[in-house]
Amino acid sequence: MEQLELLELLNEMTIDEKIGQLVQLTPDFFSEGGEITGPMQKWNLESEKLYQIGSILGTHTSEQVYSIQQDYLKKSRLSIPLIFMADVIHGYETIFPIPLALAATFDEAIVEKMAELSAKEATEAGIHVTFSPMADYVKDARWGRVLESNGEDVTLSNALTKAYVKGYQGEDLSKDKNRLASCVKHFIGYGAAEGGRDYNTVDLSDIEIAQNYLPPFEAAIDAGAELVMTSFNTVHGIPSTANTSLIQKILRKQLNFKGVVISDWAAVVELIAHRVAEDKKEAALLAFSAGIDMDMMSDSYLSNLKEIINNKNKEKLDEAVLRILNLKNKLGLFEDPYRGLTKKEFDKNKNLRISACEIAEKCSVLLKNENILPLIKNQKVALIGPKAKSRDILGAWSWIGDKEEAVSLSDGLQKKDIELSVLGFQDGRELSDKNIKKAVRLAEGQDIVILAVGETSQETGEAASLTNINLTRNQEKLIMEVSKVNKNIVLVLFNGRPVELSSIECFVKGILVAWFPGTEGGHALANLLMGEANPQGKLPMSFPRAVGQLPYTYAHLSTGRPQNEENKNQKYISRYMDEETTPLYPFGFGLSYSDFELQDIKFSKKKFKGNESISIDVTVKNKNMNSGSTVIQLYSQDIVTTVARPVRELKKWIKIDLLGHDEKRISFSLTERDLRYVHPNLKSKVDSGKFNLYLGFDSLDAKIIGTVEYHESN
Amino acid sequence: MEQLELLELLNEMTIDEKIGQLVQLTPDFFSEGGEITGPMQKWNLESEKLYQIGSILGTHTSEQVYSIQQDYLKKSRLSIPLIFMADVIHGYETIFPIPLALAATFDEAIVEKMAELSAKEATEAGIHVTFSPMADYVKDARWGRVLESNGEDVTLSNALTKAYVKGYQGEDLSKDKNRLASCVKHFIGYGAAEGGRDYNTVDLSDIEIAQNYLPPFEAAIDAGAELVMTSFNTVHGIPSTANTSLIQKILRKQLNFKGVVISDWAAVVELIAHRVAEDKKEAALLAFSAGIDMDMMSDSYLSNLKEIINNKNKEKLDEAVLRILNLKNKLGLFEDPYRGLTKKEFDKNKNLRISACEIAEKCSVLLKNENILPLIKNQKVALIGPKAKSRDILGAWSWIGDKEEAVSLSDGLQKKDIELSVLGFQDGRELSDKNIKKAVRLAEGQDIVILAVGETSQETGEAASLTNINLTRNQEKLIMEVSKVNKNIVLVLFNGRPVELSSIECFVKGILVAWFPGTEGGHALANLLMGEANPQGKLPMSFPRAVGQLPYTYAHLSTGRPQNEENKNQKYISRYMDEETTPLYPFGFGLSYSDFELQDIKFSKKKFKGNESISIDVTVKNKNMNSGSTVIQLYSQDIVTTVARPVRELKKWIKIDLLGHDEKRISFSLTERDLRYVHPNLKSKVDSGKFNLYLGFDSLDAKIIGTVEYHESN
Repeated sequence: MEQLELLELLNEMTIDEKIGQLVQLTPDFFSEGGEITGPMQKWNLESEKLYQIGSILGTHTSEQVYSIQQDYLKKSRLSIPLIFMADVIHGYETIFPIPLALAATFDEAIVEKMAELSAKEATEAGIHVTFSPMADYVKDARWGRVLESNGEDVTLSNALTKAYVKGYQGEDLSKDKNRLASCVKHFIGYGAAEGGRDYNTVDLSDIEIAQNYLPPFEAAIDAGAELVMTSFNTVHGIPSTANTSLIQKILRKQLNFKGVVISDWAAVVELIAHRVAEDKKEAALLAFSAGIDMDMMSDSYLSNLKEIINNKNKEKLDEAVLRILNLKNKLGLFEDPYRGLTKKEFDKNKNLRISACEIAEKCSVLLKNENILPLIKNQKVALIGPKAKSRDILGAWSWIGDKEEAVSLSDGLQKKDIELSVLGFQDGRELSDKNIKKAVRLAEGQDIVILAVGETSQETGEAASLTNINLTRNQEKLIMEVSKVNKNIVLVLFNGRPVELSSIECFVKGILVAWFPGTEGGHALANLLMGEANPQGKLPMSFPRAVGQLPYTYAHLSTGRPQNEENKNQKYISRYMDEETTPLYPFGFGLSYSDFELQDIKFSKKKFKGNESISIDVTVKNKNMNSGSTVIQLYSQDIVTTVARPVRELKKWIKIDLLGHDEKRISFSLTERDLRYVHPNLKSKVDSGKFNLYLGFDSLDAKIIGTVEYHESN
Repeated sequence: MEQLELLELLNEMTIDEKIGQLVQLTPDFFSEGGEITGPMQKWNLESEKLYQIGSILGTHTSEQVYSIQQDYLKKSRLSIPLIFMADVIHGYETIFPIPLALAATFDEAIVEKMAELSAKEATEAGIHVTFSPMADYVKDARWGRVLESNGEDVTLSNALTKAYVKGYQGEDLSKDKNRLASCVKHFIGYGAAEGGRDYNTVDLSDIEIAQNYLPPFEAAIDAGAELVMTSFNTVHGIPSTANTSLIQKILRKQLNFKGVVISDWAAVVELIAHRVAEDKKEAALLAFSAGIDMDMMSDSYLSNLKEIINNKNKEKLDEAVLRILNLKNKLGLFEDPYRGLTKKEFDKNKNLRISACEIAEKCSVLLKNENILPLIKNQKVALIGPKAKSRDILGAWSWIGDKEEAVSLSDGLQKKDIELSVLGFQDGRELSDKNIKKAVRLAEGQDIVILAVGETSQETGEAASLTNINLTRNQEKLIMEVSKVNKNIVLVLFNGRPVELSSIECFVKGILVAWFPGTEGGHALANLLMGEANPQGKLPMSFPRAVGQLPYTYAHLSTGRPQNEENKNQKYISRYMDEETTPLYPFGFGLSYSDFELQDIKFSKKKFKGNESISIDVTVKNKNMNSGSTVIQLYSQDIVTTVARPVRELKKWIKIDLLGHDEKRISFSLTERDLRYVHPNLKSKVDSGKFNLYLGFDSLDAKIIGTVEYHESN
């Protein structure tokens, strides 16, 4: 549709029809025949209003979308097609590893591929928009939703957020009907929930928001993300969904976002629970005034906005409606309201399963390996634990994915050339003493014992906050008891967050982080354990030693009393008396069956100015016979700054594949853009000065390789 | 000295002499004969510069002060007396309970009394200024320095901060030579150290600073506090000690503070460690430009400020010097440089010990009492545990207090009419299995077992941050093993912070929080255990169920998805999956041997406007025969607000004493001043609207008593 036609359409719309466009409901409101059902009765909606709404979220099948759209177009006066949205987070029917696991790849191409494949399946089921990526900066593993994040580094998150958007949206949404529009979320600060408790209060300074929270949103918007979702939390004491300064000054003006702003689920009506609105009418007024275009799953707009619309804000209403019409038009919905949809059963796409397996292999992180992995052919191996046979490996946000189709670790290992015994238990917290005794008996006399432990899906994701992030007491007991009869233990950890492993790490010789690996998890993990694939994931979040260290990030500030090797045990320094300050496994860490080394580091120059760049060349050598991949990480430390800056910050990384005994020369390039930081005036810039550079395989291990000097101008 | 004379003195001073006034060093720089000693050599100070400095901190005796002052006045050109400062935090030689314990009294008069008594002892030892009170808002028990705070409520902290200043300073510093000038600290945000790790990064929004962090400083300044100390942490990324906007805009302009601004220990030179200064010269420049008048314990100013002083900032230097001279003059030091000092040995003041005992009795908090306390005459009682005989009961910041003179719990109980057996262990973490067995043997057959457990002084206070705030594993084991043979256990807990008691609370029938009770601790606790005194302390900080709940305050925001009785176990609400969201013992909680009840609540009116006040009258009844004290607490909830406000906030409290079976009518008064909160423009005001009021004996238990309505004007 041409822009002029859209404007004509807008002109034709009644005020009720305009308001309807701003409303998103679940399909429950439409029974198959379009009858009025439960929640609709509760909200006292008239059928007429229902046929004016703009969007539906959370449909399950292409048939459902088809029937609702068809019914809607028939009954609504202007036949403006509904736009269908859903939480397509890490796959639709075929489930890929959770986003935190995908971040462990440090690989934009993989994330982009995953998003593209997810979009294909989802569009075939009639979905137009996904509520992904989640670009929230996180540093607290108690918060269950770290599962959906890119981890604790803002530069890595910028790159991956962009990759998601590109993968979902492709080059041209209107032409490529197997692409989804992307809604980046949650604007802003959601990950900083106090005490790691979901939905809890957030307090952040403007400079911290600008430095660590905004950039991934900026990246998503630069990449063309069509929608932004506001967060549940307060910012400066005002819920994001009612926060005019946040939406108008920062999102619209500073980030120049032109697309649709949508609330999170029921967040408009929740302004009442926040106690900043007295009733739904005030909630609607606050959210609308702040700049929420679409009210997700509440009747605040639908039942109240009309009373609020007056001459002064009529234009604002038109703008919001036009943004939604524009989005529908970009997706080509006016021409094809059944865009992308295939009415047949899902094609059980074998290629998708192959991709899911390949991607899962790249996400696993090998944390410990004392000459125990990979397994050797014909070894006598016992696979034991609540996760041994479990198919609860898809993780949160995999509502369409079928658990029964997931490949368990046991399924995967059965096909391998080892002498395998399996003892699986029910998921959850019911690992009995009797079962532990059974496990001990089985473990005796095995060459290797694989203990498959970790979290259930329920314990991770939204609203799954924990005060303890260790394994359950019974899982820890299983590990300790088995270790009494067999020291050759490999832990395979299924988890949606960093887990506190301090008390059990010493009892095992190998630790493989599986995360929630998705539909093909068991195949991928079996390949990794057998050495048919080589672990290459790197932690996107530090694994703390104790929950009491949280929030934590490797990129912390120096403080005035930093701990170092010399003062390590002195009293008046910034440390804990009962625990190391460092994490157990740091950001960026992950082992391989290959053995990589850096050699022959060369700087193109050590001083640069203006727009010049510096390049740093290094040879990466694989010192053993196993082909493998790794991520070489370049960190910087701005030596003297106006605003205190972290001890080190990831600036660049290069992922490379090397055959056995092979080597490659790689080159990092740095410009002033890479070194900028937010100044007190909230603008990003770099000061003239010196920067220490560190190169290596993780945030702690990276060694200083030199100091470079930058001058702002000639 | 008249102001004119001071200005003349200023005019006479050389630039070196002016800079010297801005410097504070330890007495180590002055050996007895005035020789150059260790640290001075390191800093390469000339003797001449030493005799230009303005202040000394941390002397131990009146003799030392006398000799240093005498030597200084002889050798320095202008004979401007040194001003002596020290950390007089909860007593000088006679140690009172720690500030967190004093806050448990909810009683300004007690705090004021304590400060006055401390001032007397300290001034007799030649001290002029104390680095107290600490007005930091805290909500994270991992931070060791909560010991020095007034707890988690800002209104309580306002009142107590004011009481400290009044107690230290009295009516007229120049006339009353037994009063100290008060330095309120730490400006600002120090208590919000990330992860509860001392000196760590702080990030706070302006509105949060204005709402919860500034008010106690405002209260101290209103009460006349002569000095303000800046904090170690960063605010908006800039260390407080170099933060111009903080010191100039907020402290000087907004709070209208006219006194001396001093850095914390070495904080100026630590700007280098923060990496915002390249060297001491830049550190000196940044701190001086920001507005630090006095450089505590670094040579940054002394060795570098001269190079920085130019025509542009000469006036700034004069202003800083004049503020210091003014302070010395206010204290009457020009007339009497040995102000207050008594050269004799400290008078072992018996009255002070009596006061210390009385105050300690009022600080203890009885958390649990299942018909086990008070003890009954002639009962067979075993006192067991690392704290049974320990004199490590003074707590941090009691450097002059003599541990050997402290009264242990055993000392105190020995004098009582019970059949007492005592088994004490070494303090610390070495409670062996063998000793636990001994304890179990002793516990068998006793009427009552008192287990004296808790923290060592070393584990609390500055730089004593913990990732675990539970009792040590061995202390928990002691409790559990003893409970197997004797259920009649009373826990006496020595602690500098809220302790996680969840796992052992069920094994004991009584819990008495002793805090660090000070020199007379054992007497006070014995009186409480015997019922000769009646517990009346109320928790000034919530005791969380798990360290993973932190930071926590009862005055948290509602969030958009608050937990309540109906939705308690639903998933998508703000809660933890593995723990209750409530604390184990809430703010304001504390039991008594009396049994109080509230009756007959009357409002003077329910609607008020402008400057009107509302009064709420209530009868407090003691339903049993034991005389006792309690604190009746009035909380409010602003029902609809512009900025999200807490679920409830303490507004007023009244502490009353009641004889057995007595009752009193008390009256609370509320005005709009009590209901103000900080708006987005950072100004405090109240909106017209409704307020729920709650009355009761703690923050959780307080019941709704009505809703009042306020209108801004007629």
